[in-house]
Amino acid sequence: MIKVGIVGGTGYTGVELLRLLAQHPQAEVAVITSRSEEGVKVADMYPNLRGHYDGLAFSVPDVSTLGSCDVVFFATPHGVAHALAGELLATGTKVIDLSADFRLQDAEEWAKWYGQPHGAPELLPEAVYGLPEVNREAIKQARLIAVAGCYPTATQLGFLPLLERGLANPATLIADCKSGVSGAGRGASVGSLLCEAGESMKAYSVKGHRHLPEIRQGLRRAAGQDVGLTFVPHLTPMIRGIHATLYATVVDRGVDLQALYEQRYANEPFVDVLPAGSHPETRSVRGANVCRIAVHRPQGGDLVVVLSVIDNLVKGASGQAIQNMNILFGLDERLGLSNVALMP
Amino acid sequence: MIKVGIVGGTGYTGVELLRLLAQHPQAEVAVITSRSEEGVKVADMYPNLRGHYDGLAFSVPDVSTLGSCDVVFFATPHGVAHALAGELLATGTKVIDLSADFRLQDAEEWAKWYGQPHGAPELLPEAVYGLPEVNREAIKQARLIAVAGCYPTATQLGFLPLLERGLANPATLIADCKSGVSGAGRGASVGSLLCEAGESMKAYSVKGHRHLPEIRQGLRRAAGQDVGLTFVPHLTPMIRGIHATLYATVVDRGVDLQALYEQRYANEPFVDVLPAGSHPETRSVRGANVCRIAVHRPQGGDLVVVLSVIDNLVKGASGQAIQNMNILFGLDERLGLSNVALMP
Amino acid sequence: MIKVGIVGGTGYTGVELLRLLAQHPQAEVAVITSRSEEGVKVADMYPNLRGHYDGLAFSVPDVSTLGSCDVVFFATPHGVAHALAGELLATGTKVIDLSADFRLQDAEEWAKWYGQPHGAPELLPEAVYGLPEVNREAIKQARLIAVAGCYPTATQLGFLPLLERGLANPATLIADCKSGVSGAGRGASVGSLLCEAGESMKAYSVKGHRHLPEIRQGLRRAAGQDVGLTFVPHLTPMIRGIHATLYATVVDRGVDLQALYEQRYANEPFVDVLPAGSHPETRSVRGANVCRIAVHRPQGGDLVVVLSVIDNLVKGASGQAIQNMNILFGLDERLGLSNVALMP
Amino acid sequence: MIKVGIVGGTGYTGVELLRLLAQHPQAEVAVITSRSEEGVKVADMYPNLRGHYDGLAFSVPDVSTLGSCDVVFFATPHGVAHALAGELLATGTKVIDLSADFRLQDAEEWAKWYGQPHGAPELLPEAVYGLPEVNREAIKQARLIAVAGCYPTATQLGFLPLLERGLANPATLIADCKSGVSGAGRGASVGSLLCEAGESMKAYSVKGHRHLPEIRQGLRRAAGQDVGLTFVPHLTPMIRGIHATLYATVVDRGVDLQALYEQRYANEPFVDVLPAGSHPETRSVRGANVCRIAVHRPQGGDLVVVLSVIDNLVKGASGQAIQNMNILFGLDERLGLSNVALMP
Repeated sequence: MIKVGIVGGTGYTGVELLRLLAQHPQAEVAVITSRSEEGVKVADMYPNLRGHYDGLAFSVPDVSTLGSCDVVFFATPHGVAHALAGELLATGTKVIDLSADFRLQDAEEWAKWYGQPHGAPELLPEAVYGLPEVNREAIKQARLIAVAGCYPTATQLGFLPLLERGLANPATLIADCKSGVSGAGRGASVGSLLCEAGESMKAYSVKGHRHLPEIRQGLRRAAGQDVGLTFVPHLTPMIRGIHATLYATVVDRGVDLQALYEQRYANEPFVDVLPAGSHPETRSVRGANVCRIAVHRPQGGDLVVVLSVIDNLVKGASGQAIQNMNILFGLDERLGLSNVALMP
Repeated sequence: MIKVGIVGGTGYTGVELLRLLAQHPQAEVAVITSRSEEGVKVADMYPNLRGHYDGLAFSVPDVSTLGSCDVVFFATPHGVAHALAGELLATGTKVIDLSADFRLQDAEEWAKWYGQPHGAPELLPEAVYGLPEVNREAIKQARLIAVAGCYPTATQLGFLPLLERGLANPATLIADCKSGVSGAGRGASVGSLLCEAGESMKAYSVKGHRHLPEIRQGLRRAAGQDVGLTFVPHLTPMIRGIHATLYATVVDRGVDLQALYEQRYANEPFVDVLPAGSHPETRSVRGANVCRIAVHRPQGGDLVVVLSVIDNLVKGASGQAIQNMNILFGLDERLGLSNVALMP
Repeated sequence: MIKVGIVGGTGYTGVELLRLLAQHPQAEVAVITSRSEEGVKVADMYPNLRGHYDGLAFSVPDVSTLGSCDVVFFATPHGVAHALAGELLATGTKVIDLSADFRLQDAEEWAKWYGQPHGAPELLPEAVYGLPEVNREAIKQARLIAVAGCYPTATQLGFLPLLERGLANPATLIADCKSGVSGAGRGASVGSLLCEAGESMKAYSVKGHRHLPEIRQGLRRAAGQDVGLTFVPHLTPMIRGIHATLYATVVDRGVDLQALYEQRYANEPFVDVLPAGSHPETRSVRGANVCRIAVHRPQGGDLVVVLSVIDNLVKGASGQAIQNMNILFGLDERLGLSNVALMP
Repeated sequence: MIKVGIVGGTGYTGVELLRLLAQHPQAEVAVITSRSEEGVKVADMYPNLRGHYDGLAFSVPDVSTLGSCDVVFFATPHGVAHALAGELLATGTKVIDLSADFRLQDAEEWAKWYGQPHGAPELLPEAVYGLPEVNREAIKQARLIAVAGCYPTATQLGFLPLLERGLANPATLIADCKSGVSGAGRGASVGSLLCEAGESMKAYSVKGHRHLPEIRQGLRRAAGQDVGLTFVPHLTPMIRGIHATLYATVVDRGVDLQALYEQRYANEPFVDVLPAGSHPETRSVRGANVCRIAVHRPQGGDLVVVLSVIDNLVKGASGQAIQNMNILFGLDERLGLSNVALMP
């Protein structure tokens, strides 16, 4: 039984880890921390957990307690894992970070996008980018995993088959992404109120969103060269889900895109390539650790349109974190992640 | 392994049975029928099921095929089970009916509320009302189970502790109930369009809703006498969930209501009495087979306010049907029903 | 042209005043205040106002500037109008307060429910309760109007015809009310996030909500005696709208309730009694200054069910405030309030 | 006073015409037709209209009655206006068609996309495309106006400044559009149910949507040459609103895009170019006849991102139809269209 700690369990990715781990046959949550909610039972804060974690309460983060765990998940705002990860690794505990702290390999670029110095650049060389579909072998050996972000997961999984095979022009990629409001977290901000975000659609951060360098880094690795990417995120009036609509120019119209995608993901348990002509809905993955993808070439032109959907809190965060944990501990990758999406 | 058949699998309670049974370790779906979708794979109609039921397709209902199952669920509009249930029982197959066909013990009353003659009155004497919290022993012996309806489940579980003990005036009960739109089913009706039911609230069927006689019958049994009940259902702009707000006049202000409710449901795995002063949210049971209840007596008066929430598709339909199946087949009642509610 | 000032214009009732006053032919907004947004143009904060108020910016509240207005609306949290109203009245400016500061005639009761001393008890004797359907003559003569609250408007208009005529038992009234989330205001609170309040329904403040004494005071005036009222508010996953479902026991089953309600409101421009058997939807009043009411007596019993809907931001706040202003200044009561509800 | 007829008034564009015309000082609705609802009062079908159209009832379409109107709006599915428009024009009545029947100048192309022969090709030469921002002079002289569609309005207004001046590569245009569900109309279809379209996002018709040829035709006119356009519409879980996110490659990075857009629309009463760096929200135009636009060039590259929002039922349909009527009859273009968007 894997002994799990969670730092920062009061946000949406924290409670989602709890929801999923409650079903995991080989892991149990021993510690969950929150400075602001010390002593509060998790089931009092999140009544959906009643009957599943009745003894578990939030405690103040503490290295010795967390260090007794086999693995610690960070479900924290950026910057927090920088400070604690090194100490935990020193105790032999594995770290799986759901925040952005170790996703960018370049500390300078991190500092530029996050507006503060990187707090643990010495750990970057060993941080493994936690996107199993590209990094499974490295994940097996990792001590420190930086779980891929939500937009980056949907976007990379959609573009990878094209870029890895050099089938698209890497200079003119576009990712038009739509996210549910839970992507903004559980913080009390006016922009996330039901009365502000409900019944409305808007783009945001068009001049540059923090996930842009992360996506670009991943696509560059796949393409073997620099890529030009325009990334436009949108806030969508729903709770969960990301729909990435991806545009790329194919360099060879003769390629069988459907076969390409099916083959690329044939052995991936959590990527589902839909039949030709399909339009995936975000609700088809609600609560499930799946990315569903469809690939189109409208009117037979040279522009490919890839549709890629995930639940931002599952395959875009907590589910993917557990998938990484399963790989890291040599378990069946699907353990605890086999629930069916909630539809309707 | 229990061999399961489902009649009428294209509606919301049908797909919900599939979602839940996919996780059930002791049951497998062998047959699912739909006249209109014959030959269509369930995963093509409901893409959330992809990867879980890839071989299963809708077939035309047929007694010999269904009769090879250990149990057949009816997830059909009213009237369908009347015709088929008897034939299936004759083959030795158990029947668990999610429709209203066998819920009312009085065929005349059924005919009055449903506007057509009862199609199988001879089966009524052996039909067991499938609300485990009141009927567990009878369910164990049943051949034909009429699963309690959605409003009736939330309302009865909320009123039972008071009525069984004679602590409320049975003549002046009020159930003000709010339901998500999935309660109206998957039929294409204007009133259930997002543009009609979204961003709005309304009452409906105030002069008399079909669940009224069912609730009244259940409360009469609990109270040991006739009850006077006003039932006002409301359509709420959400997909899942029922919130029943129940009003009753206590006959003895000295009773400890909190203790009464906690004791009544102490051994019920799927009824959760919240701490005093709580306000349950429907999302705390989204996707889960739980009824959460809180009991209040505002300003210390003699009016009790009970708040009772369920997911209408789970504890109000498909989850409860599986709970009945587990009891019927001597399994742990919780098998396949332990998933955590999806929140947010 | 009436010169209008608005104190506290950044919340939802403030922007709603601006929306409605933009169409008013006899009023213009000269001053709008907000300490936190000083200097910000209203159209920069609320882009729906672009093209309508391009010169208007928030300023710091100041008695001399506000005192140059004919009337000042307070769209502020409770407590603010206490401090300023007296000073403004001294300059000859009329005050229309949308907050709860002057709604309760009893300063002690106000202090009890709002948890602080009443800041201007000397003004209470002249404060007129701004519900035109009961107080039109007093409003014409007022200097200080306390606009009726949202729940209180829907509830009082629904109960008045019964209580004014002594046709219902005043001791057993129940108001089961459902409100959209805008009723909670534009403050950044976790409970009002789309991810918290969306796709869910819950009751709140069952033990006692601040609108309870206000409603009770109004019903007592109508009934000519004390009333017993149980008031249960619910949070509904929509932006605007209140649906009040009201229960009362009639003392004479022979009365023609439909005629009673139609006659009571025959000359009211903003109360619409629907045909017998109707179920009003909140969307039928979205954005409009109307209360729509239907009255039922299910199964011919002695319990009356009244359904009453308003837009909480219009007839429940800003529209009603303008209606009061029209009366106060001797204008046609309907000026600026004739727009049609937005449906769908 | 302009005497107005409406054919097909039961759908969303029909009721929206009624909502807007109720405020129009120079027009009155004399006739409204619907075969299925003959004799039903419009206010019984749409209770938001109660008090505004109390005498008006649906009648069977009839050329002599409609021919007595000054102008007839068609708010019908495609194909209906083909049959009736000619007859009405022969009586001297002007026709403003909100359907797609006369939008494409090429009858063959219409037949191809709509799957049936064009029913009135002889009228095409005189049909004027009703997008005032490009066609105001022709509209003044028209007898038959084909009101621009919803996606086409948002998309064309967003691209026009670039294409008219030859500043973008016309071969690589992308329109990623998000629409509320009211765009699908009021027909009872499963895909538009709250339980299907709510809390989910999906693309549809990626291989080719009927608005594609209409947009292409308009952009070709602006560019003076053929254009290559990829158009991907998405269904968004909200009632009203279109958000078009438009991508184009600029041919000259030196151009001041903000100034270009501001100048192009300086005299347009219903196109609002937001300040540089803005992100328009669809709710900022809810219920209002406005298109709000922002223009970006992320990271200073050569890809321009234009954000363009409208209310699909107003500037994308009924409001634009009235704008056309105002122009056609020589009125102030803004008459009846000055209401402020509903926010929140």
